[in-house]
Amino acid sequence: MLLGELVDTNSAWLSRRLAALGISIYRHTTVGDNRERITAVLREAAARADLVLTTGGLGPTSDDLTMECLARAAGRELVEYPEAREHIERAFARIGYTSPPRSNYKQALFPEGSALIRNPLGTALGAMVELDGTLVATFPGVPAEMQIMFDEEVEPVIRARSAGGVILSRTLWFVGIGESALAERVQDLLDMSDPTVAPLAGQGRVRLRITARAGTEEEAKEKIRPVEHEILSRLRKYYFGADDDTLESVVGRMLQERGATLALAESCTGGLLAKRLTDVPGSSAYFREGFVTYSNESKERLLGVPHELLVQHGAVSEPVARAMAGGAREVAGTDYGLSVTGVAGPEGGTEEKPVGLVWIGLAHGEGVITERLDLSAWARSRSAIRERSANRAFDLLRRYLSEHN
Amino acid sequence: MLLGELVDTNSAWLSRRLAALGISIYRHTTVGDNRERITAVLREAAARADLVLTTGGLGPTSDDLTMECLARAAGRELVEYPEAREHIERAFARIGYTSPPRSNYKQALFPEGSALIRNPLGTALGAMVELDGTLVATFPGVPAEMQIMFDEEVEPVIRARSAGGVILSRTLWFVGIGESALAERVQDLLDMSDPTVAPLAGQGRVRLRITARAGTEEEAKEKIRPVEHEILSRLRKYYFGADDDTLESVVGRMLQERGATLALAESCTGGLLAKRLTDVPGSSAYFREGFVTYSNESKERLLGVPHELLVQHGAVSEPVARAMAGGAREVAGTDYGLSVTGVAGPEGGTEEKPVGLVWIGLAHGEGVITERLDLSAWARSRSAIRERSANRAFDLLRRYLSEHN
Repeated sequence: MLLGELVDTNSAWLSRRLAALGISIYRHTTVGDNRERITAVLREAAARADLVLTTGGLGPTSDDLTMECLARAAGRELVEYPEAREHIERAFARIGYTSPPRSNYKQALFPEGSALIRNPLGTALGAMVELDGTLVATFPGVPAEMQIMFDEEVEPVIRARSAGGVILSRTLWFVGIGESALAERVQDLLDMSDPTVAPLAGQGRVRLRITARAGTEEEAKEKIRPVEHEILSRLRKYYFGADDDTLESVVGRMLQERGATLALAESCTGGLLAKRLTDVPGSSAYFREGFVTYSNESKERLLGVPHELLVQHGAVSEPVARAMAGGAREVAGTDYGLSVTGVAGPEGGTEEKPVGLVWIGLAHGEGVITERLDLSAWARSRSAIRERSANRAFDLLRRYLSEHN
Repeated sequence: MLLGELVDTNSAWLSRRLAALGISIYRHTTVGDNRERITAVLREAAARADLVLTTGGLGPTSDDLTMECLARAAGRELVEYPEAREHIERAFARIGYTSPPRSNYKQALFPEGSALIRNPLGTALGAMVELDGTLVATFPGVPAEMQIMFDEEVEPVIRARSAGGVILSRTLWFVGIGESALAERVQDLLDMSDPTVAPLAGQGRVRLRITARAGTEEEAKEKIRPVEHEILSRLRKYYFGADDDTLESVVGRMLQERGATLALAESCTGGLLAKRLTDVPGSSAYFREGFVTYSNESKERLLGVPHELLVQHGAVSEPVARAMAGGAREVAGTDYGLSVTGVAGPEGGTEEKPVGLVWIGLAHGEGVITERLDLSAWARSRSAIRERSANRAFDLLRRYLSEHN
């Protein structure tokens, strides 16, 4: 991780869970596979906090040092736990080994006095150990294993030790307004201290996070509610959802409520809209089919885009976006057809049609609406152009559905 | 970030750049928007290291505290820099404001004696300041802004100050073998200290990273080369690429070399294969079109899957995977057709066809080959099933192309 080959998602996941338990998180620290530095970090963290969680370094290889360093930091011996040995042997037996690779027995060693954390998904068990009155809990780095171990074994222990209270957050999502412009409208709220309101921007969307600390979840909600109302009274026009909502889940819910169906016609986004739409479980209720027409010939043959349009205006043009959306709707027999065609780069831009020029189209019962996007500010990033194009296309459909209820 | 609402990708990006400059990275630390804790972390880091980079906290709002805390840690005054004030005014003028929002003038304040870091993409300039002989450089949290500022302004400064030497990594990618089984085969290499070899697993792929430290890039390469050859001599069968290669980029390169074309037919992956294939710039050279047939009726109408097959075997079945691959190839007129149909969950599983059952198919000139995947171990994660299905489908095509050169 210190070489940058891997992005740490575990810290974010654990932090969300801890916040929900009312635990204030003061630091995330990442340290390399080095005995002295791991041991020092464990001691420092234990001196600073009441609870320390670690992920990674529980594997069978020689650079997996967490247990050894934890034993050293706590001044304890590493000892073999028979139940851990059995767990490892069973795990390998299940996949057809008569005995585990020798190195895996290392995973049966824990600081003396540890309470083990069961791992239903892998060979690496975790441990809970006291270090100068601080609870240290170790987890493997594999997210799925860490998550189930935290939920099933460690959360109850933390809950029992903690003073109570909760930190609750509510996130409001906006689109079609920049971060500065949005912050201006709610500057007085951003200066409050309880609840706090903080803005965060990314890929054409802006969120405001309201965070309250209180004795109970209900009290925290009571503190958040009026602030949320105040924000929405000022920014309703740009608001599209809360918390885990995404543009695709919101659009999906709107379609489902109306019993309406959607087809997609994608060129430069190359399947990204379809992928995001089907990230949402249950999307088969409204998503019928998607066409990734990456060649001009596909646009003609599959969507019925007239050859003359492509010749005269080029694939990235208003008439082609219009014909793609209409074609998808017609071929699929759906209520709506949504299209994207653009220059995602890094190559393929011209003076007339630079990287970042994108046309989106929405075919509905009464016609087709189109929008021109200028994403040339993100010309260095193919993925930014594609994600922003998808966001704007979903938002075009969202706005249409809101206005035509 | 401490509330877990955001995953930190900047640390990984900066770490890769620093490693390439031969800088050893000892720690990543994340700390909250709190004056005392930010100031303490800056002091600690400066005491420990020769170089400290920070991201985030340079915005116009009241919880943006980096400059204030840096001034405090360095014992300097915050002063207004006229060139920063002009930069902000120009940026807002470009988007049609006569003057910036008042709060943005905060972004013109820096610790006295700072060297400013220009930001061509946003209003937040960075600063380089000396703190007890340590160079501290601050960046905004927006990745695109941070990256261009590092590359254009800070890297040259670090290069000039550093002792020289490089840390070079080479990553080898494998598929079709588990992490433990792979580690067993190269255990002796994993125990080496220079170069080091470390395994890492994820979504059905395993990578081995070889890392060497040397005076020059050429020397580091000399150290890596024999280790790479040794690894490949043992694991050639599972090897698919190196460094930034992905299954989709490797498959794309193979298709392009052969002048061959591909069409996709996706059900449970819902556009993910198309999205990943078109993440690769230049993919239009071999990717013709993709069908996201999320309904049975779409599979019949677009791909010509016989109605009887769907009734008799269900959409998730060998015959349907076969018909989808063949249909895509035929309709698109491509050399190859690749299909995926499965139960991605969380709903929709039955005893006979549980969540995680996936069929993949590859249609080529002489027929169709299919494979059954059992991904039920990941039944809790729709995204894991979809990503692993995509990996296995791309690998099916990769193996076929390797064997039929």
